[in-house]
Amino acid sequence: MLEKLKQEVLEANLDLPKYGLVTFTWGNVSGIDREEGLVVIKPSGIPYDELKAEHLVVVDLEGNIVEGNLRPSSDTPTHLALYKAFETIGGIVHTHSPWATSWAQAGRAIPPLGTTHADYFYGKIPCTRPLTQMEINQAYELETGNVIIEKFRSEGLDPVAMPGVLVASHAPFAWGKDAHQAVHNAVVLEEVAKMALHSFQLNPQVEDIDQFLLDKHYLRKHGANAYYGQK
Amino acid sequence: MLEKLKQEVLEANLDLPKYGLVTFTWGNVSGIDREEGLVVIKPSGIPYDELKAEHLVVVDLEGNIVEGNLRPSSDTPTHLALYKAFETIGGIVHTHSPWATSWAQAGRAIPPLGTTHADYFYGKIPCTRPLTQMEINQAYELETGNVIIEKFRSEGLDPVAMPGVLVASHAPFAWGKDAHQAVHNAVVLEEVAKMALHSFQLNPQVEDIDQFLLDKHYLRKHGANAYYGQK
Amino acid sequence: MLEKLKQEVLEANLDLPKYGLVTFTWGNVSGIDREEGLVVIKPSGIPYDELKAEHLVVVDLEGNIVEGNLRPSSDTPTHLALYKAFETIGGIVHTHSPWATSWAQAGRAIPPLGTTHADYFYGKIPCTRPLTQMEINQAYELETGNVIIEKFRSEGLDPVAMPGVLVASHAPFAWGKDAHQAVHNAVVLEEVAKMALHSFQLNPQVEDIDQFLLDKHYLRKHGANAYYGQK
Amino acid sequence: MLEKLKQEVLEANLDLPKYGLVTFTWGNVSGIDREEGLVVIKPSGIPYDELKAEHLVVVDLEGNIVEGNLRPSSDTPTHLALYKAFETIGGIVHTHSPWATSWAQAGRAIPPLGTTHADYFYGKIPCTRPLTQMEINQAYELETGNVIIEKFRSEGLDPVAMPGVLVASHAPFAWGKDAHQAVHNAVVLEEVAKMALHSFQLNPQVEDIDQFLLDKHYLRKHGANAYYGQK
Repeated sequence: MLEKLKQEVLEANLDLPKYGLVTFTWGNVSGIDREEGLVVIKPSGIPYDELKAEHLVVVDLEGNIVEGNLRPSSDTPTHLALYKAFETIGGIVHTHSPWATSWAQAGRAIPPLGTTHADYFYGKIPCTRPLTQMEINQAYELETGNVIIEKFRSEGLDPVAMPGVLVASHAPFAWGKDAHQAVHNAVVLEEVAKMALHSFQLNPQVEDIDQFLLDKHYLRKHGANAYYGQK
Repeated sequence: MLEKLKQEVLEANLDLPKYGLVTFTWGNVSGIDREEGLVVIKPSGIPYDELKAEHLVVVDLEGNIVEGNLRPSSDTPTHLALYKAFETIGGIVHTHSPWATSWAQAGRAIPPLGTTHADYFYGKIPCTRPLTQMEINQAYELETGNVIIEKFRSEGLDPVAMPGVLVASHAPFAWGKDAHQAVHNAVVLEEVAKMALHSFQLNPQVEDIDQFLLDKHYLRKHGANAYYGQK
Repeated sequence: MLEKLKQEVLEANLDLPKYGLVTFTWGNVSGIDREEGLVVIKPSGIPYDELKAEHLVVVDLEGNIVEGNLRPSSDTPTHLALYKAFETIGGIVHTHSPWATSWAQAGRAIPPLGTTHADYFYGKIPCTRPLTQMEINQAYELETGNVIIEKFRSEGLDPVAMPGVLVASHAPFAWGKDAHQAVHNAVVLEEVAKMALHSFQLNPQVEDIDQFLLDKHYLRKHGANAYYGQK
Repeated sequence: MLEKLKQEVLEANLDLPKYGLVTFTWGNVSGIDREEGLVVIKPSGIPYDELKAEHLVVVDLEGNIVEGNLRPSSDTPTHLALYKAFETIGGIVHTHSPWATSWAQAGRAIPPLGTTHADYFYGKIPCTRPLTQMEINQAYELETGNVIIEKFRSEGLDPVAMPGVLVASHAPFAWGKDAHQAVHNAVVLEEVAKMALHSFQLNPQVEDIDQFLLDKHYLRKHGANAYYGQK
């Protein structure tokens, strides 16, 4: 079942080491079939160089395993919470990519300092609040999703226009219309995190780019009148 | 038409991932045939590992497509403005290479701190002013070229002796006598940007190198009495 | 003798250049057979790309060579001291990996700033005191082990829950249940060191993660109720 | 003539890109035959991937070309000055390796902060004074050698125990008993420069390591009682 989706999710997972986003097994990608309400996700702790399509696990939105002999990623409840809350997304990726994780550990949102950021993230990339002891002890991975959702709702963020987040003291999540685009956005997030850190070192008073430049770059790649790339 | 130029521009584009200057499709190289008044440029949004000579687009200096089935780079108006203003250059490259982009985002010119810089860039590498809202909304890519030209004219810079620039809040452009040399200069710009950031971290009061050292290094590689390399 | 252990130790040594932890011969891995009381260790100064199983040296816990034609690593007395003091470990690695070494040179312990750290190191990664002149002159490599042991005893650290250390003015040691896991932990230590430095640059007042988050992450990968990975 | 030396110098030059010390042609290695009083050096401006033994240039200690059809490195007078002043060295390398060059641009000597440094450089790695305008205009490359020699004489440094230097506003030179060891030392210099910068970022008050630790590490690898490596 879901062979095409499994192939996409497999390829997206294999892109993580290709783009240098993961050490060992520190990452996972999932994709959703919205019609079936089923999610395909990486199994927990399997090395990328051994990963095959048949290892992928199919779960429903309540986390019940529908197909697969391996345990799904321990982060599965986070993925499911995000799929339920963000109905416009089709793929999710979690990594501990080092530059984005350095920001997450610092508890800082990444402000838009340039057009690279603006091409993909329409505003500052948010950082969640820390989880409480109760949240961590009761349902850690689910609450990780909930704290992301809380952040997006309290700031009125659209997950399509802001396809990533930093979880405080932890690491980034990114997403997109499918698994492939989720990984693409995770690569951008890492690159943006690296450059923003260095820009702050060069100019500690650096300010966000102008709103009209942010609008211009985001909208020339996204939205009805986009003119970047081929039609 | 322009088969030799297309081959040069193709190779120069393929050098961008080779030298680590681009992520995804974040870059483009063009070359000009001054006699014909025609520019060969990368198409928009095509991955480098799929790029072939037949994908390249030929445009005239007004931006009319003379040959090619794909849309040219969205940055084409910037390239054309520079070719028209800087008559001594034959190739242009734009990337979001991370170290140079970090300086552009910080809004800082890169001062000449060592001989590596002096070997290629005869003075500090300038950073443009930010574009205004009107410039961005009316003709963004053209005005990106114009703000570069404005900077060079107001500072009396010779584009041959200063083959690169940082566009504030955006990223670098570099150029040269042809597409190959433009990419060569973009590689140097990235390396110089990286080292200058680290020199400032080691010595926040570091000053520009002496003018006579700048003269010596620039002129031993360039100009009538150059003695670097083979004759 | 000990062919299986030699193969493990060989592979673990070859993982050092694979993971970018060593320059030239700046590293060594050993493994112990607790029943026999014998340690297999890399010979001193042999390049990794020439290293074969037959080059490995077998020593007893007093440092007597039991098998092998080459001299064992000059750090052998450090390894032996650690094996004797930390009875629960089965493999040890020493490198000069650059990020961890930068912390060791700075004389700073690495605080737990995120879940990557918490997944492997249950608390701050300690940094030893400098060795005294007498320690250095009389039995340098043995005393390097002793100063590590002193640190673990004075702070009440469990070497299983804290599988690494920084030796002040020197570099890291890491360990694990076997040679393979020791190198795995050395890779994590390097990654954690890199990210912690950058988090401090982004937020000089960054604090340790909450104890309950540290508990959660460490214990979901380790301990009786671990649920990360496959059973 | 000098076929064995040429082969050594060729291999040492090819090690520069292998170890990531050079961009384009920014580096050169030479070796000397002390009996013949002849130096083999890289030709100027030849890319490393095209370099062959027959391209190497043989010069005498006055800089006269004894064999070869290409012009020798423009830095040849620096090499010759060093060979004449430092009679115990047999190979010299110059690069613009980025971490060491960042220190040279900052005009700072690299203090010994750890045992990696102490294993190869017996004390702080010096940085020359800037050259004067007269020195630069009259005989730049020769005076670059002279300012290095001046530094070593004024500080009473032994070029065997201190096999490298930073030329202010420029870049590093390193040397050794032969071309191979010179490159080896240049790799160490780059690694030490990188780690020292990061140690200062972690601890701006970091002090030099103790003299007895410096002695211990340097002397366990060098000198009559060395015990690192195989006999």
